[in-house]
Amino acid sequence: MRDDRTLTHLCLVSRALGAEAIYLQETEKDIPRTVQDVNSSWGGDFEVLVNPSWRSVISQAKSEGRKVVHLTMYGMPLQDKVEELRGAEKLLIVVGGPKVPGKVYHESDYNISVTSQPHSEIAALAIVLHEVQKGEELKRDFGKSTLRIVPAEKGKHVVRD
Amino acid sequence: MRDDRTLTHLCLVSRALGAEAIYLQETEKDIPRTVQDVNSSWGGDFEVLVNPSWRSVISQAKSEGRKVVHLTMYGMPLQDKVEELRGAEKLLIVVGGPKVPGKVYHESDYNISVTSQPHSEIAALAIVLHEVQKGEELKRDFGKSTLRIVPAEKGKHVVRD
Repeated sequence: MRDDRTLTHLCLVSRALGAEAIYLQETEKDIPRTVQDVNSSWGGDFEVLVNPSWRSVISQAKSEGRKVVHLTMYGMPLQDKVEELRGAEKLLIVVGGPKVPGKVYHESDYNISVTSQPHSEIAALAIVLHEVQKGEELKRDFGKSTLRIVPAEKGKHVVRD
Repeated sequence: MRDDRTLTHLCLVSRALGAEAIYLQETEKDIPRTVQDVNSSWGGDFEVLVNPSWRSVISQAKSEGRKVVHLTMYGMPLQDKVEELRGAEKLLIVVGGPKVPGKVYHESDYNISVTSQPHSEIAALAIVLHEVQKGEELKRDFGKSTLRIVPAEKGKHVVRD
């Protein structure tokens, strides 16, 4: 139901904004390869794990002491809960969509909305990752890479190592 | 080149996070209608304007006193420029992609990156709208609407007016 492009965006946003890994319940075969290619070029060791059962991902996360945060426009406003989320040692963020089983709402520790308006799971995920990390994720160093951007006021400045 | 789904996300994120309007250089015929339906159900008067010339949009924005902010992974880090952006009266945010003409980099007042990593124009737009408005956009009231969500710890609570 969710298209290839949206899944790719969810993977790359998670990686760029400091997540360790993503679990994809559905996937296209090219996505893990695409993300691996991004790691090779741009650094880091972000992982894509495919076709797990959502139940086992949630229960394993809880057993590791993670708080489970489900993003939904029906949930509690991010700004009311962000301090609590920042206090959690580790998080599992669940991004679903209209077809999420009702049990996900109940098994999650938090149901969180980024506005109560319909928009984009990609945007909601980005803002939650950004807020939970207080913007520090924007300064993350991805370590050894073959490509590296030198930020520029105008134009494109890429260094190849 | 940009798919329907991505354009829809860009429209809905802009609307949900407080923009007044979006200009789409390319569009699918259903998108303005989809966004109009969202306005009818969820409130507000966000506008979708289709097929303008990017040159005229930028020059008109400048003549209105807007600062033009082009989002690109090659640009200056958001965190280094956000105070300046917050000081601007009004902004035009340009979201392009790989095929953006080089002139856009030069005609923009700012080229801004949300990390120098490849990810998603939807996520970059969301974080920039969020930072420029200091998170105040999350509290926005969309006025009269036929559907309204009452945020809930668990489940879905929608009010129909």
